[in-house]
Amino acid sequence: MNIINNQKTTPQLSGHSVELKRAELKDYFRNTWTTYESLFSLINDDEAYYLRPEPLRHPLIFYFGHTATFFINKLILGKYLTQRVNKKIEAICAVGVDEMSWDDLNSEHYDWPTVAEVREYRHQVFTLINQQIDTMQLSLPIQQDSLAWLILMGCEHERIHLETSSVIMRMLPMSFLSEYSSDNKQWQACFDFSSAPSNKLLRAPEQAIILGKQTADETFGWDNEYGELALKVAEFNASKYLVSNQEYLTFIEAGGYKNFIYWTNEGQKWLTFSKAEMPRFWRKKSGEYYQRNLLNEIPLPMNWPVEVNYLEAKAFCQWKSEQTKLTIALPTEAQWACLREKLAGDTCDWQQAPANINLAHYASSCPIDRFSAGEFYDVAGNVWQWSESAIDGYDGFKVHPLYDDFSTPTFDGKHNLIKGGSWLSTGNEAIKSARYAFRRHFTQHAGFRYVENLDGIIPTIPVNHFETDNEICQQLDSHYGKTQLNQANYQQQISALVLDNMNQYQVDVDKCLNIGCGVGRTAFELSPFFQHIDAIDFSARFIQYGVKLQQQESVRYTSIISGDIVDFHEISLTELPIKGQGKNILFSQGDGCNLKANFDHYDAVVIEHALEKSYQPKVLLTTVSQRLKIGGLLFVISDFQYSTKYTEKNNWLGGVKVNGENVSGFDELSLRLSDNFNLLDEVQLTRVVKQNQCTYTVTETQLSVWQKNS
Amino acid sequence: MNIINNQKTTPQLSGHSVELKRAELKDYFRNTWTTYESLFSLINDDEAYYLRPEPLRHPLIFYFGHTATFFINKLILGKYLTQRVNKKIEAICAVGVDEMSWDDLNSEHYDWPTVAEVREYRHQVFTLINQQIDTMQLSLPIQQDSLAWLILMGCEHERIHLETSSVIMRMLPMSFLSEYSSDNKQWQACFDFSSAPSNKLLRAPEQAIILGKQTADETFGWDNEYGELALKVAEFNASKYLVSNQEYLTFIEAGGYKNFIYWTNEGQKWLTFSKAEMPRFWRKKSGEYYQRNLLNEIPLPMNWPVEVNYLEAKAFCQWKSEQTKLTIALPTEAQWACLREKLAGDTCDWQQAPANINLAHYASSCPIDRFSAGEFYDVAGNVWQWSESAIDGYDGFKVHPLYDDFSTPTFDGKHNLIKGGSWLSTGNEAIKSARYAFRRHFTQHAGFRYVENLDGIIPTIPVNHFETDNEICQQLDSHYGKTQLNQANYQQQISALVLDNMNQYQVDVDKCLNIGCGVGRTAFELSPFFQHIDAIDFSARFIQYGVKLQQQESVRYTSIISGDIVDFHEISLTELPIKGQGKNILFSQGDGCNLKANFDHYDAVVIEHALEKSYQPKVLLTTVSQRLKIGGLLFVISDFQYSTKYTEKNNWLGGVKVNGENVSGFDELSLRLSDNFNLLDEVQLTRVVKQNQCTYTVTETQLSVWQKNS
Repeated sequence: MNIINNQKTTPQLSGHSVELKRAELKDYFRNTWTTYESLFSLINDDEAYYLRPEPLRHPLIFYFGHTATFFINKLILGKYLTQRVNKKIEAICAVGVDEMSWDDLNSEHYDWPTVAEVREYRHQVFTLINQQIDTMQLSLPIQQDSLAWLILMGCEHERIHLETSSVIMRMLPMSFLSEYSSDNKQWQACFDFSSAPSNKLLRAPEQAIILGKQTADETFGWDNEYGELALKVAEFNASKYLVSNQEYLTFIEAGGYKNFIYWTNEGQKWLTFSKAEMPRFWRKKSGEYYQRNLLNEIPLPMNWPVEVNYLEAKAFCQWKSEQTKLTIALPTEAQWACLREKLAGDTCDWQQAPANINLAHYASSCPIDRFSAGEFYDVAGNVWQWSESAIDGYDGFKVHPLYDDFSTPTFDGKHNLIKGGSWLSTGNEAIKSARYAFRRHFTQHAGFRYVENLDGIIPTIPVNHFETDNEICQQLDSHYGKTQLNQANYQQQISALVLDNMNQYQVDVDKCLNIGCGVGRTAFELSPFFQHIDAIDFSARFIQYGVKLQQQESVRYTSIISGDIVDFHEISLTELPIKGQGKNILFSQGDGCNLKANFDHYDAVVIEHALEKSYQPKVLLTTVSQRLKIGGLLFVISDFQYSTKYTEKNNWLGGVKVNGENVSGFDELSLRLSDNFNLLDEVQLTRVVKQNQCTYTVTETQLSVWQKNS
Repeated sequence: MNIINNQKTTPQLSGHSVELKRAELKDYFRNTWTTYESLFSLINDDEAYYLRPEPLRHPLIFYFGHTATFFINKLILGKYLTQRVNKKIEAICAVGVDEMSWDDLNSEHYDWPTVAEVREYRHQVFTLINQQIDTMQLSLPIQQDSLAWLILMGCEHERIHLETSSVIMRMLPMSFLSEYSSDNKQWQACFDFSSAPSNKLLRAPEQAIILGKQTADETFGWDNEYGELALKVAEFNASKYLVSNQEYLTFIEAGGYKNFIYWTNEGQKWLTFSKAEMPRFWRKKSGEYYQRNLLNEIPLPMNWPVEVNYLEAKAFCQWKSEQTKLTIALPTEAQWACLREKLAGDTCDWQQAPANINLAHYASSCPIDRFSAGEFYDVAGNVWQWSESAIDGYDGFKVHPLYDDFSTPTFDGKHNLIKGGSWLSTGNEAIKSARYAFRRHFTQHAGFRYVENLDGIIPTIPVNHFETDNEICQQLDSHYGKTQLNQANYQQQISALVLDNMNQYQVDVDKCLNIGCGVGRTAFELSPFFQHIDAIDFSARFIQYGVKLQQQESVRYTSIISGDIVDFHEISLTELPIKGQGKNILFSQGDGCNLKANFDHYDAVVIEHALEKSYQPKVLLTTVSQRLKIGGLLFVISDFQYSTKYTEKNNWLGGVKVNGENVSGFDELSLRLSDNFNLLDEVQLTRVVKQNQCTYTVTETQLSVWQKNS
């Protein structure tokens, strides 16, 4: 019963022979396709395709068509195909309801196609994809921008839905499904169950680990798998086994589902909504527990892993902590990775899978003490394992342009990673670098292992979300993004002029104040040349990004391409052409009109578009110019375009009639500075801010240099 | 009693000797200054400086300081002066309350300086201006951007206030003013009055006339005087004399001030507000009428011209029309100009003024039959004459940059021209080209002559106001203004591409549809090459400017420099580098989604940024592409940036996810056109729209060319 002989592993991207690789891809595609259809062939009544046993998901007819439609849509998007196969099916089977949301039910009505229509459609798509594989240009290794990559993406996508569809099928009445027979041998469940071994905590030593798939990795990966996250994982204890049905039953019998104190806020809401009293695939009849598998129902197999969502797993851990007085939690992604190290090799290396994975052994879970890896069991396979880690992109994350919403919508702190794969995880899902995340209430063939954090702290990493506020994104892009319209980086222009003048007039470079620093580029550019820089902005929303960069974190933001379509960006100090690391910058939120007394004795003050953003530009000018040493230089960068959005008209520094006469911003500035400053220079600069893919705001601004003389 | 010997005429701008001109300017300045102070010297009690006999105006202390302050402010604005003389006085004496508004009383409190302070201030300014004249660079002829021009402007400004201040003084109790004596000889009123000659209508023949001062004119002019307006004035009748107090009394005695039917709506409101029962300078005591002059009160001089505002004059004309069954009205500016032709020469040509003007005869009105010009009397001088014409700039109007609000605020249809000057009009006011306007209720030394329009129509010209709507102004400027950021005119780029393609593919050029024509530049550029062009825009606000240009009218708009400070522009077809006059363009307001059936059979359809402004871009695309002949060319110019401001998201043509996949604007366009069109070409264009003096929106747009094949 070695089903692995039927299941291919995800192909290597490199190879020596293009034609052998073409054959391999074709074979992998066929294997994916037929396995998917084999699963659906278990349905013995077309009515089942239209039921919605899980109200949060589409009926199975959608998924039956969806994986074929996905191929077509990506081929069209990639411009490898110009004609659709079936407009109707490709419209209706394109977009799932948000499968991650339980509190936002979608009640749209759909005019679903018949099963025969979808079967015919799948046949057409199958033929078409085979033709594409036969005729496509192919070079090795397969690159992310190639058609071959899209074929792999389609296959791996179908393998994801192989698993999610099977979960829905586990929710169907059994009468709609075939019984196990010699016709569907590969879908035979494990029939070995008994009582569970007692679990215990084992030590996992401190370990340095690097997460993330290299760009040059040998297998297909989803965008979120690439990048790098280097971590030192402290020593911790982990349960020897996955939590078994038997161990979990103790929690239930202790009133775990009735006592809110074990549940997170989200868990309490879910419990109220779902009215759950036990795991989703348990049944209780006449006081006895049973478990529903894909094709059968058996007395609760006590030594199989319990299948729960994150919220249930977390509640168990809280209860367990209370019981043991230990800090019991789910493993983080990194802790899981430490345990995974105990299992040698990866799916493609194995002759015989040392885990219940890739359909290699059973079409169900199996006892938790069947597959060991060192002292631990089931570090991969059997059921997915929930982790404490909300999914996020590693440093260096880039979306794949033809599937820009595979991962980014889940980087919201609401989607937790599941690791290790289940008995039905195949292809990419079955390899070590696999990385999937779902809403925490989501049902999958998933359970958990628990860990004890010895320092009493659960070492999670906050999600580094993509900034989407338009104003901030545009500023981040103009400070740190690509230069636009052939104009040099604006903050670099400013900094160069500041330094030139400090040098020319031989002014000390001890302390600099950069007021209106925004997301901080000017301060970073100046930082190698001053002893200390105070970088101040009225808005903490901007400052935070200067601080993040200074702390060597990466910063993520989006930019509008057009309408709803956005681009994703990640920047970090090390990848920018900036000398030094800005350790001598003190970023502070501050009001230039009411500056704290300790901001004083500057050799240089750089007012960077702060006047026209201030509610009191006159007061700001007076305040900051007082903080300059005699002989120090004041740099005023402004477009002198005041707006009532920021500044009441009677506070404008120019751009108004004063006593009946037009007063320009620079005239008013000069008037106010004339008593204590000499004007040394005026320079015109050009500032470009990109609004979207094709629109730019270009501003001719002015930098004026003033020396304080009294 | 020939006061003209004391009064200079406004200087010539040219001359042979710079030093003689300098002396002449100094003399003219001194004459202006001393005449002004001579008027104020008539006040014998400082308290009078602070009274407000006319609640719509500042007290006299303001005007006493104001004309000096004006010099300083303009010198500072022109950067001829860097230090103020007296900040306090120059702040408080700078801006009048809007002297034109009676329904918007300003009740601000002012901390007025003392008379001694202002006297001292005037002395300082006098010295300073003399120094400026002595030392200024001077070249001949005097140009508008020179300091000498500013000196002249200050003089002419003071001469305006010489007259307006005298009007306020006529409202003071007489006890505050000196009686006539040998010390103030030049302020002696006429003492000749009796009954009036009876008035009658005389024929003025048809006449072609050109209004407007040439740039090269020999004398200083205010901005509104320059430009050109050529008119053919139809034959009309005009009253031989100005309307006398006696003639006007008939109207009063007929109940003219009690009967609203003679009054315009505005006149009725003013009458209600003012409770007037007779002209402002009449008094009625014990049943007898008197008239208040500058320094005395006399029994109503029946043969002197009545002094009224426009509203009163107009009511008289309405009454007169009713009485005579003729179309009696005030003269238009052009009709006045026809009559003025009957008087030879201009102030500077006269040895002895043939009119009661320039203080040459009296310090008051005089009998209406004293100064003849042909059959008519008082075609200039005695009192200003109200006209039917609301003031407006002539074609070619340009504001003077150092006094940008002298005229433009009055181009609002609410300010009517007064013509001809009064006994106290000197300098620029006293010359033929003088052109002043006030709100229609304003009191001045002003009366009127009436005319009969023989065709029964009052031939007024609507005011060509300055468009200030930002969106329209920006479009006008980008279509017709200077090119910006070194980018070629955008509509010229489009037109050239349209014509190139029509030519290259040898398509007929009978009919072209330009949808989204806006203010029309593309249609004008295309017009010489097509038989007929339909230019359509959804917004009539834009179309109207295409129509105006087509009708050979000039178009005026403003552009923001910064904040409240704007620039003024005037464009006309003849001054633009456009071949042809666009006579074959039919501009229509229209909805591209619901186009009238007669818009059909086009050889070319040019969609100019209409898709992204449409509420239904998909429908627009289908509709207009159906109106193209087979073989015709469709040009789509777009940036594909849809916005919910114009288009509901479900109607966007791209920039959204469709069935889960990103669809760009061009992809969606291509998909929709693919059945009936071949794509011939795609060109990237750059569009620049100036937002203000230093800010531009730069958009990289696309023009695609499609040939209809079925």
